Amino acid sequence: MPSDAHKPKSSSPVDAGCVSRRVARSHHGTIEEDDDWIASEVPIALSYNGQAHVVMLATPLDLADFALGFSISEAIIAAADEVETITMHERLEAIEIDLRVPLARAEAIAERRRNLSGRSSCGVCGMQELEDVLRVPVRVASAIRIGSDALHRALKSLEAAQHLNRLTGATHAAAWVDGHGELQCVREDVGRHNALDKLIGAMANRGLDPNLGFLVLTSRASYEMVQKAASFGIGLVAAVSAPTALAVQLADSCAVTLIGFARDAGHVVYTHPYRIAGHGA
Amino acid sequence: MPSDAHKPKSSSPVDAGCVSRRVARSHHGTIEEDDDWIASEVPIALSYNGQAHVVMLATPLDLADFALGFSISEAIIAAADEVETITMHERLEAIEIDLRVPLARAEAIAERRRNLSGRSSCGVCGMQELEDVLRVPVRVASAIRIGSDALHRALKSLEAAQHLNRLTGATHAAAWVDGHGELQCVREDVGRHNALDKLIGAMANRGLDPNLGFLVLTSRASYEMVQKAASFGIGLVAAVSAPTALAVQLADSCAVTLIGFARDAGHVVYTHPYRIAGHGA
Repeated sequence: MPSDAHKPKSSSPVDAGCVSRRVARSHHGTIEEDDDWIASEVPIALSYNGQAHVVMLATPLDLADFALGFSISEAIIAAADEVETITMHERLEAIEIDLRVPLARAEAIAERRRNLSGRSSCGVCGMQELEDVLRVPVRVASAIRIGSDALHRALKSLEAAQHLNRLTGATHAAAWVDGHGELQCVREDVGRHNALDKLIGAMANRGLDPNLGFLVLTSRASYEMVQKAASFGIGLVAAVSAPTALAVQLADSCAVTLIGFARDAGHVVYTHPYRIAGHGA
Repeated sequence: MPSDAHKPKSSSPVDAGCVSRRVARSHHGTIEEDDDWIASEVPIALSYNGQAHVVMLATPLDLADFALGFSISEAIIAAADEVETITMHERLEAIEIDLRVPLARAEAIAERRRNLSGRSSCGVCGMQELEDVLRVPVRVASAIRIGSDALHRALKSLEAAQHLNRLTGATHAAAWVDGHGELQCVREDVGRHNALDKLIGAMANRGLDPNLGFLVLTSRASYEMVQKAASFGIGLVAAVSAPTALAVQLADSCAVTLIGFARDAGHVVYTHPYRIAGHGA
């Protein structure tokens, strides 16, 4: 899958995931002009075999990963190798990404559209039919088991790996970590769903096995974050911030170990603690 | 508008915006069982005159405000008094909210649906046509002008007013503040867009004038947050966290004063500084 052919042409700061702007900074009552880095957020228009599918706002960084990961985590395709090509065009106000997929997949997408067209809402977004919103992935069979030390080692190194966030203070990260707590892959975006989709795309592209590690999110763990992770077969999700009750319910039912408030001194285990050494069965 | 008739029947903790759960808490290597409060997130199915419109995940608190504010900030109605009734039904897995609106509005919603049905995406969600995503509100004429002290006074009192967040650590708040820095209204939700929609609904319901104060967000200021605020005529938006570049562009063009990193010691002004005393024209 030729995603490397589509790397952004621009160079740092952090490959144009942000822009510079003159701002007025007030500190303890003193105002001074300063240059600030602001995270970019652009409309991404995603299409399959030339058929427009969705427009989302995202940070224009690792977009081939984003397109691939979104397609997997939304169950539009089942595996990375179903995507034949990813083509990007930068337009005036948006970036268009077209994915070439097998005819059967394209027909399934079109069929889904036909089913939805008489109804009020679309099938892949926050504005869906109830059965789409509450899509429950199959139970995750991941055999990963880690020590707490691996989690906290990953948290320590993650901050330094959030290159865009260090400049802008505006982006979330999703990180894939091996069982020893070593970061394998980190993706950033102004949207936490996007950061996770980018990570899933990067993992699929590189062939990283979701059974052999765990996910760290710098954000909260809401329903859709657990849904996306479980859809990709990830069995352990650790979020720096809080989970929601619906995310905990979903993690319960699809056998995902859900950790929240993963910070320096500790963490809270909400579901399936057997994947953390010392937490027992 | 009879929104008070639809208050949740349940009582505290924070009117059932959260649930209790037994968790395993790890702190400096020691693990203990504990009860934790987790913020609720439930599917809200919104309809107009009985026609299903959208399903969103939100915290089930201040839902009449949410329905009204969403309708206003998404430009489905122009003013609160267009909503004749708001009816709620609690189902097994979702809360249904129906808004009764004038026939002309219902027809406009239906017409919008017909226009969209041949296309792939829906018109009110994150998965839209580009022209919908980039809907630019008219320039905001708000004459509000505040001192920095009013902003920092509001920030100081906001934390204590985030009742649900104090229990759960999981929710964002949107607050309406008068020119002296006094909190007028605070709304919370696991989603920042929802918190803002709830606030806009509460303001419309109470007749709070968007010209006579400013908005404080505990979250980042992304494009859609500025879009919603400007649509309602709010001229000054202060976010505790960072803005995105697209949000700054939008604030520029629709004359919204955008402040980011609004914290104890200072803040950063990104656009239209003339609404802050001391920041000059």
